[in-house]
Amino acid sequence: MDEFEQYLRTRTDLNDGDINYILSLAIHKHLRRNEFLLREGEVCRYKIFVTKGLLRTFGTAADGSEHVLQFAPEHSWTLDVESYDRQQPAHSNIAAIETSEVLLWPKTDFDNLLSTLPQLKDLSLQLISRNIYNSRQRILTALSATPEEKYQEFIQSFPNLLTRLPLHMIASYLGISIKTLTRIRQAQLRR
Amino acid sequence: MDEFEQYLRTRTDLNDGDINYILSLAIHKHLRRNEFLLREGEVCRYKIFVTKGLLRTFGTAADGSEHVLQFAPEHSWTLDVESYDRQQPAHSNIAAIETSEVLLWPKTDFDNLLSTLPQLKDLSLQLISRNIYNSRQRILTALSATPEEKYQEFIQSFPNLLTRLPLHMIASYLGISIKTLTRIRQAQLRR
Repeated sequence: MDEFEQYLRTRTDLNDGDINYILSLAIHKHLRRNEFLLREGEVCRYKIFVTKGLLRTFGTAADGSEHVLQFAPEHSWTLDVESYDRQQPAHSNIAAIETSEVLLWPKTDFDNLLSTLPQLKDLSLQLISRNIYNSRQRILTALSATPEEKYQEFIQSFPNLLTRLPLHMIASYLGISIKTLTRIRQAQLRR
Repeated sequence: MDEFEQYLRTRTDLNDGDINYILSLAIHKHLRRNEFLLREGEVCRYKIFVTKGLLRTFGTAADGSEHVLQFAPEHSWTLDVESYDRQQPAHSNIAAIETSEVLLWPKTDFDNLLSTLPQLKDLSLQLISRNIYNSRQRILTALSATPEEKYQEFIQSFPNLLTRLPLHMIASYLGISIKTLTRIRQAQLRR
């Protein structure tokens, strides 16, 4: 809980009472490694904040292969946005990569918080904007970058995740094969 | 102008006075085919609504190749969102594919409209959500779909654009080569 309090204090000017109120509505959950928080077909009922550990959001293709949409390390938010907004079955899965701690807010509670706390609303709009910028950049990268450039961009965007992720998940996030990723990394080591 | 009025009437319950006020702040602009509305490095100063025609937003890669981020036909909005929000130089270009008519609102004017007209704000939030859903879907498609599936999804998403776009722009939007796109289309014709 301290983690989230600290997160809010550095990003908003919410007072103690507000922060305690937000925290009082949160459900605390411990996740084992590989444990699912959401499966395709279920409704994403909660806004999720990661206080400790690392989660991933991923879709599955027709052939059963996984495609990572997002990594969510400590101090970040995650959800299946469309499922959450519309309370419809999700098209993606959310699972823990490491042992993790998360805070969950049921949608109705979080909606109430957003409408009563303008500072939380502002933070939320900032996160939405950043999400849109990042998505645009990721689409552009997917369309135009070479596998080498994709990996380089990943290293720069997520320097702290590199050693925490299995190779196949990085490859899946970048949309390249493990073989290609291995070749790129070996070429870099030789330099 | 009628086009925009009709668009607002079908999507909001804004009254005549509000709609006229929104229109009174818009700059009307005619675009020739291939004319640029925004170039990389310029600041995106306007919220853009397309009343007639077809625009595209695209980035350029290091090798000079174009990568289409978005097609904006009549009755849709476009802008370089990061450049507009932060009033910083844009990383993308916006240009007319067909002879087009657009309405432009300077950011300060549109911000005022959003803060005084809750119905416009609601519409704006709906569009932001849809943008996020579409981006997620596009990232997932870019990561997981075969070229055939990408083209099929494009046909379903934009049935009206198919005959209005040159092949190389569709290929650029899908992140596949013109050669591959031509092969897919010929295979479909043979069926």
